[in-house]
Amino acid sequence: MPEAGSEFERIAALLAALPPGEGVVVGPGDDAAVLRPRDGRDLVATTDAFVEGRHFRRDLLTPAEAGARLAVANLSDLAAMGAEPRWALLSLVVPKAWSQAECLLLERACARVLTADGAAIVGGNLAAAEGPFAATLALLGDVERGAAWRRVGARPGDVIAVTGFPGSAAAFTALALSGSPPSRARVPAAIVERVVAPASRVKLARALAASGGVTAAIDVSDGLAADLAHLCEASHVGARIDQASLPADAALNEAARALSTVPATEGDVLTRLRLGASDDYELLLSIEPSKWTDCERISHELGVPLARIGEFTSGSARVLAAASGREMPLDVPGWDHFSEQT
Amino acid sequence: MPEAGSEFERIAALLAALPPGEGVVVGPGDDAAVLRPRDGRDLVATTDAFVEGRHFRRDLLTPAEAGARLAVANLSDLAAMGAEPRWALLSLVVPKAWSQAECLLLERACARVLTADGAAIVGGNLAAAEGPFAATLALLGDVERGAAWRRVGARPGDVIAVTGFPGSAAAFTALALSGSPPSRARVPAAIVERVVAPASRVKLARALAASGGVTAAIDVSDGLAADLAHLCEASHVGARIDQASLPADAALNEAARALSTVPATEGDVLTRLRLGASDDYELLLSIEPSKWTDCERISHELGVPLARIGEFTSGSARVLAAASGREMPLDVPGWDHFSEQT
Repeated sequence: MPEAGSEFERIAALLAALPPGEGVVVGPGDDAAVLRPRDGRDLVATTDAFVEGRHFRRDLLTPAEAGARLAVANLSDLAAMGAEPRWALLSLVVPKAWSQAECLLLERACARVLTADGAAIVGGNLAAAEGPFAATLALLGDVERGAAWRRVGARPGDVIAVTGFPGSAAAFTALALSGSPPSRARVPAAIVERVVAPASRVKLARALAASGGVTAAIDVSDGLAADLAHLCEASHVGARIDQASLPADAALNEAARALSTVPATEGDVLTRLRLGASDDYELLLSIEPSKWTDCERISHELGVPLARIGEFTSGSARVLAAASGREMPLDVPGWDHFSEQT
Repeated sequence: MPEAGSEFERIAALLAALPPGEGVVVGPGDDAAVLRPRDGRDLVATTDAFVEGRHFRRDLLTPAEAGARLAVANLSDLAAMGAEPRWALLSLVVPKAWSQAECLLLERACARVLTADGAAIVGGNLAAAEGPFAATLALLGDVERGAAWRRVGARPGDVIAVTGFPGSAAAFTALALSGSPPSRARVPAAIVERVVAPASRVKLARALAASGGVTAAIDVSDGLAADLAHLCEASHVGARIDQASLPADAALNEAARALSTVPATEGDVLTRLRLGASDDYELLLSIEPSKWTDCERISHELGVPLARIGEFTSGSARVLAAASGREMPLDVPGWDHFSEQT
């Protein structure tokens, strides 16, 4: 069943103001985009969807903020491969409750965030349908041939490092929903900023890739413990995380304290936030020990927080070492055993 | 808000049985797919979405049939560029009303249809969300550098040709919904087959591209008159269509006769079906007159119906020439003036 005639006008309006991308032979407006790959590079391709009510709430995020997060969710996948973003396709499913102006705000914010990392929206699709608003982005990038980072490659002894402050997204949601109506006013400003305008880690990833030393990588979109588990399973290694080294700043500490007063929250809230489910779009990296200092310097030069939080081990056990010296299994989900012990 | 843990298992199940694709360096299971482009080729990229209730109805299409149509909707965009399909990303938004088995059926049928044209699903996304089921496919292909067909390029005097039997999809929907409950039993079997297992025109497109002679192309997913208008506007030409040359077979004739008895249907039903809104995934081609015989022979060898339905003209008028010799404006949507005159 074809779209209404006005779809063409809406797609045209959505795409008209976009800057043309590099390597774009045919952009929006034909049956498909035509793109010119660079010699000696592999392509890297990912897709991520944002569905209203599932991945974002309209009472907590503006359309533009949702668009920016959708862009970063995809950019984060490319950063985790050490790749350079180039082209994107944006597909929207739009219910009557969304105006064309709101769609444009989302799409322009998405395009602006992509452009900052060198990627252009080269095509897309627009469908009117009842149900929740949904935006699906497919992002293409490239990387020097054979040089893509993977989840496999971490070795026992490699440094475990993570960017930013995982747990911030979980803190945002938990605090915003801790009262009625849901409100961002309950969330520390620095945490709100991290969620509504998340930083892309693409530039850091490209700089680290150029310097060498990263042996495996994954993006932290499910939570630090869960994504560490994925990386360990792919690399057939274990991991030992130092609780004291897990990143936290004043804002995350403040959020954890505020959440400690919420009746449903139990145990060591800060640790649960930092390790549990949270879609922060940070990078979890395995780094050769001899290259750690180089990597630390690069992250410092780029102004990206990069914390050394532990090391990969032989075997398959993943443990959290508390300040007391006690080691606990680093399991997800649940944390029941953990909250009992702290 | 991250997905539940079971998402990983479901994605793994969805992707496990897929055949590996050519040029796939890293397939499903990492943060992104890594793909090796072929030297001397341009990439071609498109995306299309199928939303339950908007693009398909569960009482009229099985999950596997919806998956096959989603694949062909995207393949058709690549065929219209003369490109060869290679890799795809499949993103599903799944409400509780859809079982994992149904998702698998849709996904496998989609993969099977893609594989027949040389493309592999190399990644995707799965999100649980309330609302209608939605599947978004992003399809990548390649084409000899600089050789992609476009909507621009048709010249006055070029032959207008179309594959298959546009209007079949519209006939299917109109007949199936002409009684209560909606039923495929009212639709001629050959029409049902065209809709539930639409043919991909990729092989024809590649053979025609190799022989030369196609000066412009578009896929007929909105209806013949509407897509012809897009091509004419892009190429800055007019068009003259011979009503007597528009393709119809016994099944489409039968469907038109059946629809003539439906109270809401007026005017020349067969012509309205063939020119009006209908998502048939056929190709509308502009062909150099001297190459028409070659193209006709190739289509015959491949068993694809290809009808010569008119020619492009100078100016911008699009007209339909009736058997009587009378010419009428070829406008969409509406057909009110047309139904009055026939």
